[in-house]
Amino acid sequence: MDEGFGSGALTELREDECWDLLRTQTVGRVGWKGSDGLTIVPVNYVVDETAVVIRTAPYTELGREGSIQEVAFEVDELDPIARSGWSVLVRGRRRLDPEAYGTTPRPDVWVGGSRWLVLRIEARTISGRRLATDAH
Amino acid sequence: MDEGFGSGALTELREDECWDLLRTQTVGRVGWKGSDGLTIVPVNYVVDETAVVIRTAPYTELGREGSIQEVAFEVDELDPIARSGWSVLVRGRRRLDPEAYGTTPRPDVWVGGSRWLVLRIEARTISGRRLATDAH
Repeated sequence: MDEGFGSGALTELREDECWDLLRTQTVGRVGWKGSDGLTIVPVNYVVDETAVVIRTAPYTELGREGSIQEVAFEVDELDPIARSGWSVLVRGRRRLDPEAYGTTPRPDVWVGGSRWLVLRIEARTISGRRLATDAH
Repeated sequence: MDEGFGSGALTELREDECWDLLRTQTVGRVGWKGSDGLTIVPVNYVVDETAVVIRTAPYTELGREGSIQEVAFEVDELDPIARSGWSVLVRGRRRLDPEAYGTTPRPDVWVGGSRWLVLRIEARTISGRRLATDAH
């Protein structure tokens, strides 16, 4: 009977491990307090030093709302079969990056239309956890 | 040269499509305004009528913070190669569900320790989008 116990062990990741894991993926989820409430949407991204760089269009909610705003950015890689994986959470303010075209890496664009707004999320905090299934 | 244009078409999903897609997955991301700022973590879940049911432990941040609180819950399935996929966003208040053991479905537990708090997120709104790459 399921008593609400699992066998996996959850361990905190070091900051350098978090950054290394962030660089292995291309899609994350950005969350913010929008006009309709908390919003979470998937975005593709690149890591640039201590920032996550995403791109959007001026007419999207992400583009329209204040450019200086606290956001959360989450990336994970989870295996539902093995019940193991990791997740990393970046918190920081997002800001428009007018310099971005010249100098910084930026992600490819998946969605149609012009997505020329480059948003940088400078990490104020980064944290992560790994879930490993115990050997039996 | 990358001009910031993508070729994918983003379409809004109907509510029934959103629910159908939610039922195809087992892992989503729940976001809320925590004591340290916006937080997003992956969780496994089940759908029960118009609610998302997740489980946590009393000592986690999700378990400790107020049981009546607005949260966002996001699920997606994205293919970075094809640059296509979908995402669904549920917004609602989460509440402890003391009846859960007897009557409602609940997700399996992945993490070690006792995770006996069952949280229901009753959907106040549900929305979703599908990204399909244009045929060339």
